[in-house]
Amino acid sequence: MPEYKAPLRDIRFLIDEVFDYPASYAALGASDATPDMVAAILEEGARFCEQVLSPINRSGDEEECQWRDGVVTTPKGFKEAFAQYVEGGWNGLAADPAYGGQGLPHSLGLIISEMVASANQSWAMYPGLTHGAMSAIHAHGTEEQKQTYLTRLTEGRWTGTMCLTEPHCGTDLGIIKTRAVPQADGSYAISGTKIFISAGEHDMSENIVHLVLAKLPDAPAGTKGISLFIVPKFLPAGEGIGERNAVSCGSIEHKMGIKASATCVMNFDGATGFLIGEANKGLNCMFTMMNHARLGTGMQGLCLGEASYQGAVRYANDRLQMRALTGPKAPDKPADPIIVHPDVRRMLLTMKAFNEGNRALAYFTAQQLDIAHRSDSAEQREEAENLLAFLTPICKAFMTDSGLEATNLGMQVFGGHGYIREWGMEQLVRDCRIAPIYEGTNGIQALDLLGRKVLGSQGKLLRGFTKLIHKFCQAQAEHPRFKAQVAELARLNQQWGELTQKVGMAAMKNPDEVGAAALDYLMYSGYITLAWLWLRMALVAEAKLQAGEGDSAYYQTKLATCDFYFKRLLPRTEAHRAAVEAGSDCLMQLPAENFAL
Amino acid sequence: MPEYKAPLRDIRFLIDEVFDYPASYAALGASDATPDMVAAILEEGARFCEQVLSPINRSGDEEECQWRDGVVTTPKGFKEAFAQYVEGGWNGLAADPAYGGQGLPHSLGLIISEMVASANQSWAMYPGLTHGAMSAIHAHGTEEQKQTYLTRLTEGRWTGTMCLTEPHCGTDLGIIKTRAVPQADGSYAISGTKIFISAGEHDMSENIVHLVLAKLPDAPAGTKGISLFIVPKFLPAGEGIGERNAVSCGSIEHKMGIKASATCVMNFDGATGFLIGEANKGLNCMFTMMNHARLGTGMQGLCLGEASYQGAVRYANDRLQMRALTGPKAPDKPADPIIVHPDVRRMLLTMKAFNEGNRALAYFTAQQLDIAHRSDSAEQREEAENLLAFLTPICKAFMTDSGLEATNLGMQVFGGHGYIREWGMEQLVRDCRIAPIYEGTNGIQALDLLGRKVLGSQGKLLRGFTKLIHKFCQAQAEHPRFKAQVAELARLNQQWGELTQKVGMAAMKNPDEVGAAALDYLMYSGYITLAWLWLRMALVAEAKLQAGEGDSAYYQTKLATCDFYFKRLLPRTEAHRAAVEAGSDCLMQLPAENFAL
Repeated sequence: MPEYKAPLRDIRFLIDEVFDYPASYAALGASDATPDMVAAILEEGARFCEQVLSPINRSGDEEECQWRDGVVTTPKGFKEAFAQYVEGGWNGLAADPAYGGQGLPHSLGLIISEMVASANQSWAMYPGLTHGAMSAIHAHGTEEQKQTYLTRLTEGRWTGTMCLTEPHCGTDLGIIKTRAVPQADGSYAISGTKIFISAGEHDMSENIVHLVLAKLPDAPAGTKGISLFIVPKFLPAGEGIGERNAVSCGSIEHKMGIKASATCVMNFDGATGFLIGEANKGLNCMFTMMNHARLGTGMQGLCLGEASYQGAVRYANDRLQMRALTGPKAPDKPADPIIVHPDVRRMLLTMKAFNEGNRALAYFTAQQLDIAHRSDSAEQREEAENLLAFLTPICKAFMTDSGLEATNLGMQVFGGHGYIREWGMEQLVRDCRIAPIYEGTNGIQALDLLGRKVLGSQGKLLRGFTKLIHKFCQAQAEHPRFKAQVAELARLNQQWGELTQKVGMAAMKNPDEVGAAALDYLMYSGYITLAWLWLRMALVAEAKLQAGEGDSAYYQTKLATCDFYFKRLLPRTEAHRAAVEAGSDCLMQLPAENFAL
Repeated sequence: MPEYKAPLRDIRFLIDEVFDYPASYAALGASDATPDMVAAILEEGARFCEQVLSPINRSGDEEECQWRDGVVTTPKGFKEAFAQYVEGGWNGLAADPAYGGQGLPHSLGLIISEMVASANQSWAMYPGLTHGAMSAIHAHGTEEQKQTYLTRLTEGRWTGTMCLTEPHCGTDLGIIKTRAVPQADGSYAISGTKIFISAGEHDMSENIVHLVLAKLPDAPAGTKGISLFIVPKFLPAGEGIGERNAVSCGSIEHKMGIKASATCVMNFDGATGFLIGEANKGLNCMFTMMNHARLGTGMQGLCLGEASYQGAVRYANDRLQMRALTGPKAPDKPADPIIVHPDVRRMLLTMKAFNEGNRALAYFTAQQLDIAHRSDSAEQREEAENLLAFLTPICKAFMTDSGLEATNLGMQVFGGHGYIREWGMEQLVRDCRIAPIYEGTNGIQALDLLGRKVLGSQGKLLRGFTKLIHKFCQAQAEHPRFKAQVAELARLNQQWGELTQKVGMAAMKNPDEVGAAALDYLMYSGYITLAWLWLRMALVAEAKLQAGEGDSAYYQTKLATCDFYFKRLLPRTEAHRAAVEAGSDCLMQLPAENFAL
């Protein structure tokens, strides 16, 4: 297994040099998050991920979770690691101090989550789902619910889940069948089956708090008739737990990857539940935390891509095979290390360009999350909310698709050894493969971006973002080194608006045009977004080099990777643009039954 | 698991209507391969694959092969299926009648192999490797070796392997360490360790015949000092087996996929071996069968893509989720089948366009294989050999990369269920993932295409192929329906030559330009090649429709898929072209140590 080493240099580059998190934290009143404090947290977090989580990643995959009579046992070391995580205060890092949290910025929490998932994606699911439940209760719970549940979730004594999917529906939550019948005491009896429930049952915590979507007896049909309920595994009693609730784990799934994450079938047999938020507004409650969760899911692409890259670079330097086409580079050895071969470098640089570009995208977006949560200015908050709404589906889908490409390349660098489980490279592919699927498939993200966000706002959300790029290009149009790249970005930025208009016009006549264009439109958008971020990074690196500041090799590498991105990855926009412009006819003309011919 | 149904209609379309195999077989004197006989063989082969091999595919993946004290047990049903396969005469279908084979054309053998691998890729490895060993012995063995080994391999009583890779070398066979010491009796004592040996040990056959690359004591360094040896598990005795040889299976690998294929570490401890072919010419012996083996490996992309497509189409018609954007299509149901959604169709059509295009590429190439083997005309044979040399790396790499994309899309169509092992869709991804790696990684194929084949022949091999396309485009330039597509193909065909010239010029100054361009050049070539084949298929379909012959829905579907290919997949050439033109600087400028920064 590639040993994970947290990329602290690259993290610091983004937060200190590119996005100036310290200024942002100060402006947002996050006074605890001083540069020293942030540095200490990152280093301590890195240590935990490298030393505790990374070593149990491979073994967790081989052991998988075990189910027996409703009891789920996690792989060796998982429970202990969770205890250490809680003990270290990591669970409540970005949580509300009113309920026991440390109140640090969400962006910092996300960076810690990045390290956690890079080291051990399966393990990351347990705190990850808990954070989702915490957000929901924080946003929609009553004060009593917060005191009862949020404090214990923050403490890490209890963990949480999100129970949405049912056997017959995932994307289409309007047709869920789980029922909630009001009881005399104000609670509800919840009955139904939920599937794909991550961390639905396990042995890490005293109690598990399920957030369950269900329908009231008189609920309107469709998505407007869904309510959200808190259904704890054990009913709370005093400071701890009381009676066991009528919720149980019927089985766990056997999956392609994230095998140490318990994916549960949860049976609710008249379980006691408590309404959270307004009746029939359950889906809205879910949506309020979607941006955060989807950004987190998007980051999995980055996390596993990073882990894979680290393994691939080490291997490419160690493995001796063939001579360089330009003559031996290690004449004293039987062959040259494979990093001398251009095609191996193509793979490594593709991974590197995606990872570092995706990290920039994630951190830029996380900064907007902080602003949306904390800014005093309503205008700033709205601007940040708009950027978040626009960038979230791109983060989720582009980062997971490119992350999957990265993990596949990392495996390819290993040749036949990449296919052998022992090396750990293929696990990263399998663990990553769920990310383009869950938390809304990438196809759904694409519809969200193009249909709901871009066209649904009459282009306003797109313009809010392309305006940033436009201003950047204007300001840097004469940059002595990056003039050509700036011009290319400006050209694509303008094309982006024009392409959107074309699709919008076509969609007015035929709504299928949106679905036909969506996925390629999203990928196209992602490549342009990363081009902007790569230039922003390159400008900083160039300025540091000019000023003779800091580690010149690091900055030179940034410049070279940016160069690679513009020359070899950005041209993919052309294929996506053509696919968008192809329209829906070539997809819709065939009757469904012809597909099987 | 998606139940495999052999796509006989599509197979017949290609062999009867597009490539006219009957005429080709007649011209090549393959008089046994009458249309009736071919039809009967295909139907019987389909039945075997559907009823015997497909049902043990999922269970084989879950059981995996088991190793204990050097003995390997294959999953339940594997041994029995092999007995049925041998009993049915499938093993010797395309083998030389002089040694017990049926002497049918190789192209027909490849179609049967396609069905076998589509139904069960792991199982397909056992006869697949046997066929490889048979080819080698047929081409290079003495008459005595053929009588001893080839007859029993053809009979299916014995199976074969190819032992090339060692722990420290795969691509770079020049540095192998396995040694062959001449013995007084004319045999050799073989010592060394080989890894990744498919079918190296198992319980299906009485004996296993290893073809082993090793070095003689006085061998020159590098690839010119490698010899090939026959090393049987049991030494032959009379009509059967005698003494056990000093070769043993040290362990089997735990892999990402093809888990029911035994991938063995083979230890040779002074085992008795027999030289096959000339001393120090072992690599040449291997190369003579590379085209065949690489075409077969390329077909795995098609096979697993086809299996995945079949599952995905069924699911897309069954699964109800959301309403069509243009209004309900199944108003009596709670939601519409997901095949109404344009993005689901995009995924299905991408798979379909790759699968059917790849099948056309494979069958066209297989036809050249027949000509190269059987034609009376030296000129025809040379032309076929040249086409084979050129197309083989494209088949291997393009078909496996696009096949991997197809299996990933098939899994994506299933949403969360695609990630669950029970459904079998993720297995197809895992089983496919080895194909871009083994039998020469796709990076090596790309170097073979651009460096060895195209530039190495001063463009001759490329021109031999683009000439075919050029003639086709000239002939169809005014086609009333396909004029635009023909023009687009002609444009790309010309660009292909120009692009090649550019790379060739650059490579004269800097050999790294070849490696830098190779992979994208290969993919670019693959897309253009498939465009030609798609147009050829479309022309046939159009002609049949015009003539009112046959199944119009089938032909309409061909036309629609061709349309999709040109509009949505062929534009990817643009991204690959740009990457090729980017040159090597953006790959090579960084010192190796900077990659880890």
